[in-house]
Amino acid sequence: MTRFIGTRALFIPGPTNVPDAVRRAIDLPQQDMRAPDFASFTLPIFENLKKVFRTETGTPVVFPSSGTGLWEAALTNCLSPGDRVLVARFGQFSHLWVDMAERLGFEVECIDVEWGRGIPIEQIEEALSQDRGHAIKAVLATQNETATGVASDIGELRAAMDRAAHPALLMVDGVSAVGSLEHRFDDWRIDVTVSGSQKGFMLPAGLGIGCFSEKALTAAESAWSRRCYFDVRDMVAINQTGYFPYTPPTNLLAGLKVATDMLLDEGLDAVTARHHRLAGAVRAAVAGWGLQLCAQEARWHSDTVSAVMLPEGTDGGAFIRHAYFEYGISYGAGLSKVAGKLFRIGHLGDLNETMVLQILGATELVMRDMGMAFETGSGVAAAIEHLSRPVGGGLKVAAE
Amino acid sequence: MTRFIGTRALFIPGPTNVPDAVRRAIDLPQQDMRAPDFASFTLPIFENLKKVFRTETGTPVVFPSSGTGLWEAALTNCLSPGDRVLVARFGQFSHLWVDMAERLGFEVECIDVEWGRGIPIEQIEEALSQDRGHAIKAVLATQNETATGVASDIGELRAAMDRAAHPALLMVDGVSAVGSLEHRFDDWRIDVTVSGSQKGFMLPAGLGIGCFSEKALTAAESAWSRRCYFDVRDMVAINQTGYFPYTPPTNLLAGLKVATDMLLDEGLDAVTARHHRLAGAVRAAVAGWGLQLCAQEARWHSDTVSAVMLPEGTDGGAFIRHAYFEYGISYGAGLSKVAGKLFRIGHLGDLNETMVLQILGATELVMRDMGMAFETGSGVAAAIEHLSRPVGGGLKVAAE
Amino acid sequence: MTRFIGTRALFIPGPTNVPDAVRRAIDLPQQDMRAPDFASFTLPIFENLKKVFRTETGTPVVFPSSGTGLWEAALTNCLSPGDRVLVARFGQFSHLWVDMAERLGFEVECIDVEWGRGIPIEQIEEALSQDRGHAIKAVLATQNETATGVASDIGELRAAMDRAAHPALLMVDGVSAVGSLEHRFDDWRIDVTVSGSQKGFMLPAGLGIGCFSEKALTAAESAWSRRCYFDVRDMVAINQTGYFPYTPPTNLLAGLKVATDMLLDEGLDAVTARHHRLAGAVRAAVAGWGLQLCAQEARWHSDTVSAVMLPEGTDGGAFIRHAYFEYGISYGAGLSKVAGKLFRIGHLGDLNETMVLQILGATELVMRDMGMAFETGSGVAAAIEHLSRPVGGGLKVAAE
Amino acid sequence: MTRFIGTRALFIPGPTNVPDAVRRAIDLPQQDMRAPDFASFTLPIFENLKKVFRTETGTPVVFPSSGTGLWEAALTNCLSPGDRVLVARFGQFSHLWVDMAERLGFEVECIDVEWGRGIPIEQIEEALSQDRGHAIKAVLATQNETATGVASDIGELRAAMDRAAHPALLMVDGVSAVGSLEHRFDDWRIDVTVSGSQKGFMLPAGLGIGCFSEKALTAAESAWSRRCYFDVRDMVAINQTGYFPYTPPTNLLAGLKVATDMLLDEGLDAVTARHHRLAGAVRAAVAGWGLQLCAQEARWHSDTVSAVMLPEGTDGGAFIRHAYFEYGISYGAGLSKVAGKLFRIGHLGDLNETMVLQILGATELVMRDMGMAFETGSGVAAAIEHLSRPVGGGLKVAAE
Repeated sequence: MTRFIGTRALFIPGPTNVPDAVRRAIDLPQQDMRAPDFASFTLPIFENLKKVFRTETGTPVVFPSSGTGLWEAALTNCLSPGDRVLVARFGQFSHLWVDMAERLGFEVECIDVEWGRGIPIEQIEEALSQDRGHAIKAVLATQNETATGVASDIGELRAAMDRAAHPALLMVDGVSAVGSLEHRFDDWRIDVTVSGSQKGFMLPAGLGIGCFSEKALTAAESAWSRRCYFDVRDMVAINQTGYFPYTPPTNLLAGLKVATDMLLDEGLDAVTARHHRLAGAVRAAVAGWGLQLCAQEARWHSDTVSAVMLPEGTDGGAFIRHAYFEYGISYGAGLSKVAGKLFRIGHLGDLNETMVLQILGATELVMRDMGMAFETGSGVAAAIEHLSRPVGGGLKVAAE
Repeated sequence: MTRFIGTRALFIPGPTNVPDAVRRAIDLPQQDMRAPDFASFTLPIFENLKKVFRTETGTPVVFPSSGTGLWEAALTNCLSPGDRVLVARFGQFSHLWVDMAERLGFEVECIDVEWGRGIPIEQIEEALSQDRGHAIKAVLATQNETATGVASDIGELRAAMDRAAHPALLMVDGVSAVGSLEHRFDDWRIDVTVSGSQKGFMLPAGLGIGCFSEKALTAAESAWSRRCYFDVRDMVAINQTGYFPYTPPTNLLAGLKVATDMLLDEGLDAVTARHHRLAGAVRAAVAGWGLQLCAQEARWHSDTVSAVMLPEGTDGGAFIRHAYFEYGISYGAGLSKVAGKLFRIGHLGDLNETMVLQILGATELVMRDMGMAFETGSGVAAAIEHLSRPVGGGLKVAAE
Repeated sequence: MTRFIGTRALFIPGPTNVPDAVRRAIDLPQQDMRAPDFASFTLPIFENLKKVFRTETGTPVVFPSSGTGLWEAALTNCLSPGDRVLVARFGQFSHLWVDMAERLGFEVECIDVEWGRGIPIEQIEEALSQDRGHAIKAVLATQNETATGVASDIGELRAAMDRAAHPALLMVDGVSAVGSLEHRFDDWRIDVTVSGSQKGFMLPAGLGIGCFSEKALTAAESAWSRRCYFDVRDMVAINQTGYFPYTPPTNLLAGLKVATDMLLDEGLDAVTARHHRLAGAVRAAVAGWGLQLCAQEARWHSDTVSAVMLPEGTDGGAFIRHAYFEYGISYGAGLSKVAGKLFRIGHLGDLNETMVLQILGATELVMRDMGMAFETGSGVAAAIEHLSRPVGGGLKVAAE
Repeated sequence: MTRFIGTRALFIPGPTNVPDAVRRAIDLPQQDMRAPDFASFTLPIFENLKKVFRTETGTPVVFPSSGTGLWEAALTNCLSPGDRVLVARFGQFSHLWVDMAERLGFEVECIDVEWGRGIPIEQIEEALSQDRGHAIKAVLATQNETATGVASDIGELRAAMDRAAHPALLMVDGVSAVGSLEHRFDDWRIDVTVSGSQKGFMLPAGLGIGCFSEKALTAAESAWSRRCYFDVRDMVAINQTGYFPYTPPTNLLAGLKVATDMLLDEGLDAVTARHHRLAGAVRAAVAGWGLQLCAQEARWHSDTVSAVMLPEGTDGGAFIRHAYFEYGISYGAGLSKVAGKLFRIGHLGDLNETMVLQILGATELVMRDMGMAFETGSGVAAAIEHLSRPVGGGLKVAAE
C-alpha cells in the first residue's frame, strides 16, 4: 500500500493501535525459546494473564494463532463429536462460531436473534431448563458481538444457567471484550474464554489467548475430538515448565508482558471505566448527528465498538472507501446482513480523549463530503460536553 | 516521563511527528562512516537537499547540531568581527538570532517591530538605501517567526534589496519554513538558508541543515571570524567526496534521505498547498471560536504555526499544563513578551486532515474545561467546512 | 531474561537471525486488514512465495500458526480418518509428525530408521510397491531432520514413488529446508510442503507457510477430516481476493514480503550455494576438532544444521548451559534419543562468513572451558581454509 | 549502500555497536522538549553522567554535536584569544585538536612525539616547570589516541602537573576512553573532559558529552573567546532546570539514559576490567600472528582499540577494502602518517567474547586471502587461551 501523508486514523475494532512501548517491546532480536532461563521470561506472562482474566483457578493459554483458533481450541478440547451446544446467533461473529461448531461435527442448537439485540438470556434459560437429560454440553456466548456493537451480560447468563441448574460448560467469546470490558472469569464461572492479541491486549494479531477452567481441563481429558495443534493438554503441561510444545512467537510474548503490565498498572476497573467514558462520547456524538446505533437498547451498547446505522440513500461501502482513500480513515464495515448499512467505530485498546475527538471530527468531515444531512460540529460538541472535566478547583493542574 | 494512555497529541511547531517510514529508516545499526562505499549513501542525500532548497547553484550542508548551530555557521563563516548586519526583530526567534550576532561580535542594526507583524520590508529597503558605503554586510531575515506565527515574504525582501542595489548577503532563518512553506533559494538569491531537521524535514532534532550560495562560500574564504566546528569550508570540501570531517549522525542521515524522498515524491508545490489548506482549517476554527491570531494581518499568517491569543482572564500557562497533564496535548507556549497570553498550534510536517481535526476538537475540550466562552463545536465545524471535499462526481471513490 | 553484555550468539536452527531490514519491515503500526487496497499488499507476497517454492502450479498458504500447524493442515485437509500414511522416523521432528498423524486418527505405517540416517528411499519404494491396493494415501517426508542434521533427497524420493507408480500424495516437511536448501515443488511434484517463518524465511515465529498442489487441493474437496481453522479451502478461496478468513498477522506478512524479496534478489541458487559453502566450513571445523557429526554419511549432511556428537564424558546439557550463561551462546540441544549427547549449530538464514567464524571460535572456547581434548584453533583454521578466497587477481577489490 | 547478507562486522573504534535495548530506547516518537515534566526525563540523565565521569563536583553537559564540538567547547569557553595551551601530538586525533586550537586563535605549544608513543609526561612536567609566568593556560591531553591505539595515564599527568605546581587547566580528550577505560574526573582533578556518544556510551553519533570542573566554569565567566552555540554558561544554567537552550535530540537522550544505566548496572570497574580482558585477547591474537601493534610499549596498549601494523608488502587500503566488500567487515584504517600501514580493531562498548572471536577469526580469513604469512588459527587459539574460564568446579553451570 502506498504511503499516506500523516498518520492513518485506524478505528477498526481491532487490530487496535499498539502502544509505542509495546511496539518497542516486540521489536526484539530473536530469542532462544529453549534457553535454560526461558521460563523466567514466560511464567510472569501467565501470571499477568491470570490477573487480566480475573482468575485464580483458571489456566491461561497462548497459542500462535488468531482468536479464531481459540474458538476451535475451546470446542475440540472440551467436546466430543456429536455433542450438543447451545448458542445464540445475533451477528457475524456469533454466526461464524456457529458455523465452525457445525463443521467440527457438533450438534448446534441455535437461537437466532435479530441483529442489534444481545444474548436472549431468558431463551437460553428456557432451553437449558427443558434439557432434562443434559444433552447440551456447552453454552457458547459472544460477550461482545463486534459486528453489531452489542455487549451482553455474561454474569446474568451465568445466573440463568444456575437457575436452570444445568451443568453445561460456559464458553465465552471475549475477543473484543477481554482487556476492555468487564470480564470476570472466576466470578462468572466461565469455563473457556476465547480471546486474541489484537484487541484489548493492544498487540498485533498473532496470538490466540484463552483461559480454561479446571472443569474445562477435566473435560479435555475425556473429550475425544481429534486435535493436536490446539490440544490444550500438551500446551498446559509444557507451559507449566515455562516452555511451549512448538516454537512460540517470542516477540509477541514480549509485547504481551508489557501490554498486560500496562493494563494492570492502570487497573482493570480503571480500564473498564475509561472505555465506558470514551464510548459515551462516541454515543453522544451519534445522537448529536441524529443517527442510530445498531445496538437496539442501551443495555447492549458496547463500550468497545459502535455500529452506526447510515440513513437510507447513503451507501456504506462508498462511505468507507471515501474515508479510506481521501483521509486514511479505517472504519469497520457492515458485514453480511448489515453490509452497506452501517459503519463501525472501534473505541478500544490504547485510547484516549483526543483520539476519540479525532475520529469524531473526521467522521463529520466524511459525512459532510457524502452529503449527509446533519449539523456540522454537533457530534463533536456533544462528545466534548460528555468528556469535559472543568478545571474548577484546578486540582490536577495545581498538583504537578 | 510516565506513560500516557493512548498516543500523545504533539502539536508543537517542532519537533514534528516523524512519519513512520522515516522513523524506521533511522532505526539502523551503526554504520561505518569511512566505509569505501559511504559516498553512495551520502551523495544522494545532498542531491535531494538541493531539490528541496530549490537550488542548482547552492551547496547544502548538514551539521551535527540543532538549527541554532546553523545560525552560528551562517554568521561566522561569512562575516568578520565588527561587520554590520541588518535585522528585524519581531519575535523570540528573531530576537535570539540578534542576540547571537551581538555575542559573536557583529554590529547589529536592529529594527524592532511589534510582535505579530512581519519583516518591515520598506524599512529594510530604506536602511539599505541609506547605507551608501555598504557597511551592512548581511541582512538577516526570519522567514517564519515560530513564536508569533508570522510568515514574511522573502521574495519581496529580495526585491527590496535589489531596488536598494545593495550587495549585502541575504541570510534567511528557514527553520520552520523549509520543507513546508515556499522557499526558493535560487529564485530569491538567498545566500544562506538556516534550517534544522525537526520541522519540515520531519526528523528528530539533531541535524542543522543549511544551504550556502556561491557568494556566501566566496565570503567564507576571506571572512576571519574564528570558527572550526562550523567551518563550512572543511565541511563542503569533504562532503564533495561523500564523507564528513567528523563523525556524522548516520542514523539521521538515513532518515533524511527517506524524508526528502517523501517531500519530493509529494512534490514541493503540493507540500506547500497542503500546508496552506490545513492551516486554513485551523484559522477557520480560531475564527469560529471568536479568537484572534497573534499574526495581525492575513498576509503574515503562517501556514506552519498558529499563535492563538487567549482572552483576558485565561492563563496561558494553566491552559497548556491542563492540556498536557489531562489529555497529553503539547502546544507551543507563549514565549517572552507573549508568555501566558497565547498558545501555539504547530501544523507542519507530516500532517493531514484527521490530525488537524484531532487538535481542534481537543482544543475545544481544553477551552471548555478552562471555562472559556465559545460555542462548543464551532471551531471544528468551521474547519470541516473549510476542508470538505464533497464526493460529488464521486470520481476518487469510483477510481479505486 | 536479564541483559547480556554484547550481542548474543544465536545459533539454534531456528528461529534464525532476522535481517535488520526485515526487522524494520515488521515494526509497523497496525494495518486495516480489510482495507479496500489490502490486496495490493498481500498478492505480491503470494507471488514471491510461489517463486521461493519454485512452483507455478502450486498454491502457497500462510496461516497464523507455527510450522507445526501446517503439519496438521497438510494431514487434515487431504486425508480422511483412517487413511493410511507411510512415513520414516529418524529424528525428533519426524517422530512428532508421526505422533500427530496418529493422534489425528490416521493409520501410520512407520519405518523406523537409526537416528543419523536419512529417508530410506528403497524401503519406501518397496512399501509402496507392495501396496497394490493403494491403501497408502500419503507419504510423509522430512526433508531436513533438524534434530540430527540430516537432509534427504526429495527428488530421489519422488523418483522412487514414480518407479512404484503409486498415487500417494507426497507431503514434505520443509521447515528447516525451504529458503535455504534446494526445494523444488514443481520439479519434485510435491503435494504439500510444510514450512514456517522462523527458519529460511528469516522471520520471527508466527507464520505457518505451506504450499498445496492442485492434486492436494482436489483431495481437500473430498477429504472429510474435521477441520476449520486450518481449512485450506477457506483460506485459498479468500486469499485469491487478497484477504484472509480471519485476522492475519500483518506485521509478519510485511516482513515476509521483504524477506522473500531478499531471497529472490540473492537468487535461490545462490542462497543454496551460500548455505553449502558455510556449512562446509562448519563441517571442516568439526573434522578439525576430531569430532563426528550425527549425520552418518556425507550425502545426508545438512547444510542448515550440524549436530555434533560430544565425546564420552562430556555432558551435553552442561556444555549448552555453560555456553549460554557464560557467553550468551545458544546452540540446539540434543533431543530425546540423543539428549545430552550432542549440540547443534544452526547455520541457516541470514548468515555469512564472519558469523560462522564467530560460532566456531566461540565453540572452541566452550570446548576448552569444558576440558575437551582438541587442538585449540584447529577448527577455526580448517574453516578458514575452506572459506578463503585469495585476493589473487584482486578482481573484486579492484572492482569497486 | 546495498544490503550485505548477514550482519556486518563493525569493529571500528566508534561508532560502536549499539545495544539492542538502547536502540529501542532511541526509537521513540518525538517528545515535547518544553513539556512541564520534561525535567523528570533529563535530570536523571545528568545524575547518571556524573557517576560515569566519577565526579561529584563536575558538571556534565550534552551538546547536539559530535565529540569534535566538545573540543571547541572546551577551548572557547575556558580560554581567551592568544592564550597559550600545551599539548602533545602523537596521532591523528591529537593532531586535529592542535589544529583546531590554532585555528581558534590560541597559541599552541606543541610537543611532537613519535606516533605509537603516549603523552610524554616528563616533557609536559618540564615545560610547565619552566613556565614560571604561568602563560600556559591549559594542558590538552588525549587520553586514548584512537589513531594509534595508545592510551596514556592521566593520573600520572595530573601528578606531573602537581609536581610543577602549575595552575593550568587540564583538558582531556576522553572520546574513546570514557565509559570504557578508567576515567576519574574528580580524582585526577580534570577540568574539562571531552567525549561523544558513539564510543563507550554505546549510542549513535550526535551527542557531544563533556564535563566541566568548577574551575573550568569559573574560567568560562571571564574567558572572552567568541562563542554562542557551545557556550557552556547558557547550557549549564538552563540544564539546571531540566531544559535546554535549543532543541535537544531527545531520542538520543532517551538512549543515553538507558546506556548509562547499563554502564552503572555493570559497574564502572567491571566495565574497565571487561575491556581489559577482551583487549588482552586481541593482543594475544596479534602476537600469535607474529604482528606488532602500533603502540610501542605495553603501558600504552589501549584497551579500546588496537592498531595492528601490517608487514611490508601488504597494502592496508587493499586489506580494508577486501574485508569490507568481501565479508562486510569494517576496520579502522591507518590515518595520515600511518595510512596504508595498519588496520585498527575497535574493541570497545557493548562487547563480549564471542564478538571478539568473530573479528579475530574474520581477520585471519582476510589475512589468508591477502596472502599474508602466518599460521592459520594461531591468533584465535591464543585469544581462546587468554579468555578461557575452565568450568572446573562447575560452579556457574551448577548454579542456574
